[in-house]
Amino acid sequence: MFVSDYRNVTLLSGFWKKKEDLNRDVTIDAVYNRFDETGRIKAFKCDWKEGDPQQPHFFWDSDVAKWLEGAAYILKSNDRPDLTEKAEWIIDQIEKNQGEDGYFNIYFTVVQPEKRFTTRDWHELYCAGHLMEAACAYYEATGRDRMLKLMEKYADYIHRVFIEEKSANFTTPGHEEIELALYRMYKTTGKQKYLDMCEFFLENRGQPGNNEAQIFDAAHYAQSHAPIRDQHEAFGHSVRAAYLYSGMADLAGEKHDEALLTACRDLFDDITKKKMYVTGGVGSTNIGEAFTIPYDLPNAHAYTETCASIGMMFFGERMFRIDPEHPSKYHDVVELEMYNGALSGLSLSGEEFFYENPLEINLVERTRITATNHREHWPITQRVKVFGCSCCPPNINRVFSSMGTYFYTYDDASGAVYVNQFGTSVFEKDGVKVSVETDYPLNGLVKITSNAPVYVRIPAWCRKFTADKAHVMVNGYAKFDAGEITVDFEMKTELIAGSVNIVKNLGKCAVRRGPIVYCAEGLDNGGDVHTLYVDRGTVAQAELELCGKCGCYAITLKGFRRVDVDTDSLYTPLEENYIPADIRMIPYHAFANRGETDMLVWMNYR
Amino acid sequence: MFVSDYRNVTLLSGFWKKKEDLNRDVTIDAVYNRFDETGRIKAFKCDWKEGDPQQPHFFWDSDVAKWLEGAAYILKSNDRPDLTEKAEWIIDQIEKNQGEDGYFNIYFTVVQPEKRFTTRDWHELYCAGHLMEAACAYYEATGRDRMLKLMEKYADYIHRVFIEEKSANFTTPGHEEIELALYRMYKTTGKQKYLDMCEFFLENRGQPGNNEAQIFDAAHYAQSHAPIRDQHEAFGHSVRAAYLYSGMADLAGEKHDEALLTACRDLFDDITKKKMYVTGGVGSTNIGEAFTIPYDLPNAHAYTETCASIGMMFFGERMFRIDPEHPSKYHDVVELEMYNGALSGLSLSGEEFFYENPLEINLVERTRITATNHREHWPITQRVKVFGCSCCPPNINRVFSSMGTYFYTYDDASGAVYVNQFGTSVFEKDGVKVSVETDYPLNGLVKITSNAPVYVRIPAWCRKFTADKAHVMVNGYAKFDAGEITVDFEMKTELIAGSVNIVKNLGKCAVRRGPIVYCAEGLDNGGDVHTLYVDRGTVAQAELELCGKCGCYAITLKGFRRVDVDTDSLYTPLEENYIPADIRMIPYHAFANRGETDMLVWMNYR
Repeated sequence: MFVSDYRNVTLLSGFWKKKEDLNRDVTIDAVYNRFDETGRIKAFKCDWKEGDPQQPHFFWDSDVAKWLEGAAYILKSNDRPDLTEKAEWIIDQIEKNQGEDGYFNIYFTVVQPEKRFTTRDWHELYCAGHLMEAACAYYEATGRDRMLKLMEKYADYIHRVFIEEKSANFTTPGHEEIELALYRMYKTTGKQKYLDMCEFFLENRGQPGNNEAQIFDAAHYAQSHAPIRDQHEAFGHSVRAAYLYSGMADLAGEKHDEALLTACRDLFDDITKKKMYVTGGVGSTNIGEAFTIPYDLPNAHAYTETCASIGMMFFGERMFRIDPEHPSKYHDVVELEMYNGALSGLSLSGEEFFYENPLEINLVERTRITATNHREHWPITQRVKVFGCSCCPPNINRVFSSMGTYFYTYDDASGAVYVNQFGTSVFEKDGVKVSVETDYPLNGLVKITSNAPVYVRIPAWCRKFTADKAHVMVNGYAKFDAGEITVDFEMKTELIAGSVNIVKNLGKCAVRRGPIVYCAEGLDNGGDVHTLYVDRGTVAQAELELCGKCGCYAITLKGFRRVDVDTDSLYTPLEENYIPADIRMIPYHAFANRGETDMLVWMNYR
Repeated sequence: MFVSDYRNVTLLSGFWKKKEDLNRDVTIDAVYNRFDETGRIKAFKCDWKEGDPQQPHFFWDSDVAKWLEGAAYILKSNDRPDLTEKAEWIIDQIEKNQGEDGYFNIYFTVVQPEKRFTTRDWHELYCAGHLMEAACAYYEATGRDRMLKLMEKYADYIHRVFIEEKSANFTTPGHEEIELALYRMYKTTGKQKYLDMCEFFLENRGQPGNNEAQIFDAAHYAQSHAPIRDQHEAFGHSVRAAYLYSGMADLAGEKHDEALLTACRDLFDDITKKKMYVTGGVGSTNIGEAFTIPYDLPNAHAYTETCASIGMMFFGERMFRIDPEHPSKYHDVVELEMYNGALSGLSLSGEEFFYENPLEINLVERTRITATNHREHWPITQRVKVFGCSCCPPNINRVFSSMGTYFYTYDDASGAVYVNQFGTSVFEKDGVKVSVETDYPLNGLVKITSNAPVYVRIPAWCRKFTADKAHVMVNGYAKFDAGEITVDFEMKTELIAGSVNIVKNLGKCAVRRGPIVYCAEGLDNGGDVHTLYVDRGTVAQAELELCGKCGCYAITLKGFRRVDVDTDSLYTPLEENYIPADIRMIPYHAFANRGETDMLVWMNYR
């Protein structure tokens, strides 16, 4: 069996260790404090009454549950009595307010109790799923099983309502999450019942005859348009989709279900080959927070929710484990999200968040003054401390405190270790020990010491690497025997083109160095980034400058700025009027940390 | 005084003579028949009752009035008893159903009589204005003054309600039109009262304290945000704006009002230098059918209503006459609209119409399947015979039957004639006679015979011209003495760039030859026009082929098509993978005449 478990991994230094520390020292408290101020914490007391301020929302349980899950991971290797106290207080409230029958949901207890399990899209099972994940995480990290027991009771109640009595108004949830959570409950408790429930909710999805009232005006929105084995293209709300596909992957791996594995593979390929931004962002439209048609990837209006990128990390990590070929493409996508699409959701300060992650900001374009065009949706340009729908911040909490999950995977059958992501760190399990030293992603030099065979992922961005030991290539991994190994991935600044099918990017290029995708911000470039052209012939002379704040290099490229010669005319004969201009680019994940300014990923070039 | 009057001009052959004939032989009847089928004609009987089909809309009077105006111009020089009969029948109905007080409006007679003059945005005075224009046109063309008398009576009633009694619920109309119509009533009847009314409606617009209930959520929408002399930037609904500015120009010219002239000049420059497509289209957003901010000119979502381009012809033609410098820029814009933005509103068959005139069609992009994104607005891709809001078709009727207006302007003080637009034609007035022979716009050779001094506009697109007679340049016009003159405008296929401020067009070019802007359609180019790149180095070798249907040349340019080498990856290192490709382009005005297909004005180039 392939196991990816953060508990076997210690990050020691470098890029992700710093992010892990930032999350532990800043972000986990920042999210808690905002949740406290907005009433999400005290809502667990379940004493809200009509007329009180801060009426609980039906998704609040999930926000706090994700925070609790993140706190649990931190508690695994940190002495943080303050976090334990907060966690235990929340668990106290759940214990106190859980129904005799096992039910727990704040909104449906204090706001609309008569609506329990009546409304498919009101996130009831989604909240339950996040509470279950938190319970598993808290138990695994701390050994305390009180929350787990409470959630077992809740899961048992859900089993009764949905499977035994079939008394709910719907068969499957509008927002997926409980599927993968139930699989985790099964793995944590060993109880077959939870696997059966996971299977129930997955297998019933999109089945004709089930009571799956359409949400908005389409079944596609909530992936209810077809049974799961018939889903081969990604549709609808992108976070729901990624969570569903992750649950499908769990089940496919557990059951060695070929048809389900095929669906998962097709979905993964459909997203990554047709519906993903160069940053890893997915779900391009705000309308339904959804996937659209292939290659429809507008830059300024990119929705690309942080949670969707995180969801792709979940999906990719699972696919790597369950695909019998374990190809490297899955962790290529995990890496893309880690360094770009997901990471951009958090400010460098660790206290502010993006829900949407656009690939272009043009402030002038946003200032349309015609009275009635406020309807056009623009992503915000500066991260904020909390959102009304604040799913992304605690999602960062839980992922950044369990990053080890993505670094190593252990094959307990062969005793080999897959090195999937790179950072100075140690993996230890069953007497197997792998140590890695590297400055990645600053450069591609990775030193590995292992007492077991290791498979080292050769990143998709790397076109040439050297190794000082013999190896064989296996599905994108270089396999080495135990020993001391030095691998060097050639890391150069390079220009990236999109497929010709992405019409809006034709004639434009993105800038990438190793796993990091870059962007140009106005405040580094005289305000205007849209008239800049990268000089493609001089990319090899790009200058690097280490930025202490973001932990990566800023890049200065040679280029040009197009100017108007006849400033009195809107249209003039085409003449190439360019003046030389240096173009300073920073990692995409670090944009919008110095005030509001224009930003661009896809640059013109000459 | 400068006079532009179609009655002094006879088109003899060539491009616009054919369009004039098409309008007379096809379009005028096509519009009438659609209006008949949709109930607009019989609505003039004012016998609609609740429960009847085809309930009159509050703008129907204006649709038919514009048709009537167009029919009048045709009757000036054609024996068409059928048109006379139809016109007289309509006038019969107006006479029969006009109130004792002079009021005439179908909707407010048969649908909501209690709402007369209560609702600023319900087009009541707009309809009145179009009826007045039709009355003037019919009188001028046929000598029959029955309709003119009816409309004088109506105008007198409006004077009573709005100026004497101030009993209407609003001070100025939500949709402008009556201002320029009243000016025309003044010029036709010589009655000062109508000039005073024109002045009243103009001067009261946007005055604080007036009852100008906001439409939608902003005064800008209907240009009511400021008094007219304080308006220096174009805002709001573009057709309303163009009609208002035309009325302002009429008044500024009549009163020699410097401040008002300055406002008109500023508005003209604001539009043409910041808010106009390369095709002449204006009003870039469907939201409010409006101008937005400078340089916000999206191509696929261009709204660019046909009526707005026609409105710019009205505004430009007036500005030319009233600006004491009479610079050529005004008729440059008229020409741009004639051959592109306005002309694209009519199919080559003469029977079908565009309301919106986009600069790009990407059929795949339109097929977004996510359930909820139907909200995005896309212009239609094929012309239709009639619209629910069918203002554009009869606007084409009236403009195409009075095109002589735009060809010559007579300065009755000096006896000189301005040759503004070019076609084989004769101008005659007060013993002055100017004959022109030319194949324009196929080439730039123009032979002029004149017994008076002539000013020949040197088109803005022309960078070199020759003349066989001595001349002096006066504000963009070449002034010649009476005699036989040959002028040759060098006409070459050329590539056009937009200002760097139009961010979406950076790195792209438009193709123009003389006054004609070109586009590439998918069906000429293997389906896909978006991956084509014009080879800028070979434009001089462009091949021309005369198209009998549109009366212009199609152009074949050398170019390239970008292809994906690695079709399995969405993003790859930038390599310039191009295969040679001929690019066939047709006049923009002729797009969408052969079935639905992709279309592109702004092309990539190398």
